[in-house]
Amino acid sequence: MACCHYHALMIPGGDTAFTVDASRVTFGRGCLKEVGDRALVLGLKRVALFTDPRLAALPHFATVKASLLAAGLDVLVYDQCRVEPTDQSFREAAAFAAEAKVDGYVSLGGGSVMDTCKGANLYASHPADFLAYVNAPIGEGRAVPGPLKPHIACPTTCGTGSEVTGIAIFDLLERGVKTGIASIALRPTEALVDPDCTDSLPGEVVAASGFDVLSHALESYTARPYVRRPAPPRPSARPLSQGANPWSDLGCREALRLMGLYLERAVADASDAEAREQVMWAATLAGIAFGNAGVHAPHAMSYSVAGLVRDYRAPGYPQLAGEVPEALVPHGMSVILNAPAVFRLTCSACPEQHLEAAICLGADARRASAADAGEILAGKLLQLMKAVGIPNGLAGVGYGEADLDALAEGAYPQQRLLQNAPLEMSKPVLRELFRGALRYW
Amino acid sequence: MACCHYHALMIPGGDTAFTVDASRVTFGRGCLKEVGDRALVLGLKRVALFTDPRLAALPHFATVKASLLAAGLDVLVYDQCRVEPTDQSFREAAAFAAEAKVDGYVSLGGGSVMDTCKGANLYASHPADFLAYVNAPIGEGRAVPGPLKPHIACPTTCGTGSEVTGIAIFDLLERGVKTGIASIALRPTEALVDPDCTDSLPGEVVAASGFDVLSHALESYTARPYVRRPAPPRPSARPLSQGANPWSDLGCREALRLMGLYLERAVADASDAEAREQVMWAATLAGIAFGNAGVHAPHAMSYSVAGLVRDYRAPGYPQLAGEVPEALVPHGMSVILNAPAVFRLTCSACPEQHLEAAICLGADARRASAADAGEILAGKLLQLMKAVGIPNGLAGVGYGEADLDALAEGAYPQQRLLQNAPLEMSKPVLRELFRGALRYW
Ligand SMILES: NC(=O)c1ccc[n+]([C@@H]2O[C@H](COP(=O)([O-])OP(=O)(O)OC[C@H]3O[C@@H](n4cnc5c(N)ncnc54)[C@H](O)[C@@H]3O)[C@@H](O)[C@H]2O)c1
Ligand SMILES: NC(=O)c1ccc[n+]([C@@H]2O[C@H](COP(=O)([O-])OP(=O)(O)OC[C@H]3O[C@@H](n4cnc5c(N)ncnc54)[C@H](O)[C@@H]3O)[C@@H](O)[C@H]2O)c1
Repeated sequence: MACCHYHALMIPGGDTAFTVDASRVTFGRGCLKEVGDRALVLGLKRVALFTDPRLAALPHFATVKASLLAAGLDVLVYDQCRVEPTDQSFREAAAFAAEAKVDGYVSLGGGSVMDTCKGANLYASHPADFLAYVNAPIGEGRAVPGPLKPHIACPTTCGTGSEVTGIAIFDLLERGVKTGIASIALRPTEALVDPDCTDSLPGEVVAASGFDVLSHALESYTARPYVRRPAPPRPSARPLSQGANPWSDLGCREALRLMGLYLERAVADASDAEAREQVMWAATLAGIAFGNAGVHAPHAMSYSVAGLVRDYRAPGYPQLAGEVPEALVPHGMSVILNAPAVFRLTCSACPEQHLEAAICLGADARRASAADAGEILAGKLLQLMKAVGIPNGLAGVGYGEADLDALAEGAYPQQRLLQNAPLEMSKPVLRELFRGALRYW
Repeated sequence: MACCHYHALMIPGGDTAFTVDASRVTFGRGCLKEVGDRALVLGLKRVALFTDPRLAALPHFATVKASLLAAGLDVLVYDQCRVEPTDQSFREAAAFAAEAKVDGYVSLGGGSVMDTCKGANLYASHPADFLAYVNAPIGEGRAVPGPLKPHIACPTTCGTGSEVTGIAIFDLLERGVKTGIASIALRPTEALVDPDCTDSLPGEVVAASGFDVLSHALESYTARPYVRRPAPPRPSARPLSQGANPWSDLGCREALRLMGLYLERAVADASDAEAREQVMWAATLAGIAFGNAGVHAPHAMSYSVAGLVRDYRAPGYPQLAGEVPEALVPHGMSVILNAPAVFRLTCSACPEQHLEAAICLGADARRASAADAGEILAGKLLQLMKAVGIPNGLAGVGYGEADLDALAEGAYPQQRLLQNAPLEMSKPVLRELFRGALRYW
């Protein structure tokens, strides 16, 4: 459980150090109204304010805009961020940013908005072919050549942790697959995490984004330990997905503890201020942890679950007037559907981490042995999934046996994440994991 | 124990959010040799390398210098940092820095060296009267007008946490009192924490600097909660000593747990690699915590204990050839001597925090009630102090009843810290605390 166990895991040629980073984070009810003052202190004069059409109509947006204007800044609004962004929607946002000629960015929204803003900031600051910076092997994985413009990220879901990570995720339409860009340069300069934002969140969004948080913590905690990753060619080239480490472990354990205590309450009751606040804090902690450790198989697999969906559309994620109806498995749902199957398997690699994680979530495991750890953790997850209305496995969102090959094919290119798993994730292993995730109860 | 308790403590006019920051931290054996590559990535070409005369002769220094040279940097060495720096020694270092015309700094040493480097960077970057930036009421407390040059801090003690804080401490000779400069601008850009450095540390230095760590964690954990501090006039003016908060609590608990497990072993045996590594990690965690929460009475009181000492000189802190013999109570010792007396008193303000801290340290408190918390925590501290050879209270370093007024007078101006205590610290209260700290066993 302590960080002491890393010693025993060292291997020849493995890394011997880890490097961690975090943004400046402000947390507390009402802190959105600090945005104007904070932008001023960063030296900003003209900012682009990113949001999505739904949020643009909510009071959180009015608060942020008013605070920026009151501080005397010029504000250019981009409210066309797409929920579950695509390369297409990233490009449109980047075109706006390139025209706007701003000296900084503010994003207000869930992961979809914050990621879009990161992408726009990147391509406006360092123009390049779209695939240049996208993770290899799907893109070229080219290093970002320098710093971006300052970015103040204000998350409104509880949530992706994107406010503290150097990651931006999107659907690559032509390939039917989700992928992303990962560089420390993308990490926002500051995060303003205001739990008041969660008051207006539908319970279904709390459930999906909450399971994203929970899985960030579980995957980082069970990731391949940093000492088992080959040492980088040069120290500054240590990847964001550097594996489990004593720093990320700390955030993971606390996030799991908070999610075990508060997720069900936060989903059930929008007026449960304490629960929603704690889930929001857990989201930021898990973001700091996974931003410095990396996720693995459940997230890698989620990319094909979300990308290949046919006609499931999650309740609580309504279309706006005029929007084309589209199938949608929300990100957190597409992750957690795989998780019980994955942890049943990965348990053999590090049973103590699996058991400790289950205990943090509140499972009664006092008399459990290491051999039971995978089942105990999977059982605790399934209990929580049922409690907040997650569908019964991949079948619940429309997949069947006939899709297993395509799902495995879609997940396999996510090598950045798969290599961060504690066990080897070949295509046949992935196919078996998807099969195990079809139906749980 | 969770962060949930902050809700219940809110008061009208109190702050409603907290803001946390941390440097980029690299931790692991051998990581000193990353310094050249990291300096390059920061864009540096010509750096000042700060250390003290003793460290200049050790292999850690050779490693750092060789790494910087191998990366093609010009390196200007300043090896005259004073152990327990003074305004005089800060000025000399700043004069060197102003002449050197470097574009960045590397410091290798304990708090004395890192703090001297921060001071030199500050006055070389933004020249001013020496007292301009010094904490009020002793100095003017003027805001630092802009960013400093990049600074890579490499701690060699386990230790002050100065590598991740915006604080620099020195003796103001003419007033016979320790004081400091506190600004987020002083926080080093990166920290390279290499436990190999601790191999050459005398046990007495591990004991003193280890108790500094332990007290950082205890004081931050029991500090006035951030919601009880008056809200700042503008959000960006939230002080570093913002009070206990959910972020600092996390680092404090883990640091206390590690110190309870490893401090005695680390002091007793320089070859106990696991223990020294864990104490080094605890030092960084406690630094991140107290850098975002602030310490209180034991540290405030330490400044007069260290400043007014007559003829005690701690073993393990030898003079170098040619150095004038001087009295010296090492910083960590001057802090921990006050701690049991303080926590016996402050317990009434937040007994649960005191009890939880004692439990993290390993005290058996299963059947304890809140009323016993102060005594249990003090008892655990005294047990550890005896075990590692800390003197028996202030009398053990030469103070007596006759010094109580002077000690209280000397501590009282440390208002930045005293206002961070969970109880009011008037002069008579301080005097009583010093009396309680005279003799413990
Ligand atoms: N960058 C990262 O580190 C990272 C990590 C995890 C996930 N992601 C990505 O983030 C995206 C998912 O983000 P998300 O889960 O935060 O949801 P989201 O941003 O997709 O938003 C979901 C829905 O909730 C609405 N909404 C958001 N906040 C609201 C509020 N306060 N009140 C009412 N409605 C609100 C949105 O308008 C949208 O309809 C995915 O694309 C995922 O891949 C990124
Ligand atoms: N800036 C902050 O946040 C902060 C916090 C706490 C304390 N401090 C300050 O830091 C100073 C104390 O620093 P410290 O406790 O780290 O000790 P130190 O820097 O004063 O060093 C103590 C002694 O140990 C020697 N030494 C250091 N590293 C060594 C190594 N690896 N091997 C052998 N010898 C070594 C030094 O040469 C010196 O003789 C005090 O001035 C204190 O006020 C600053």
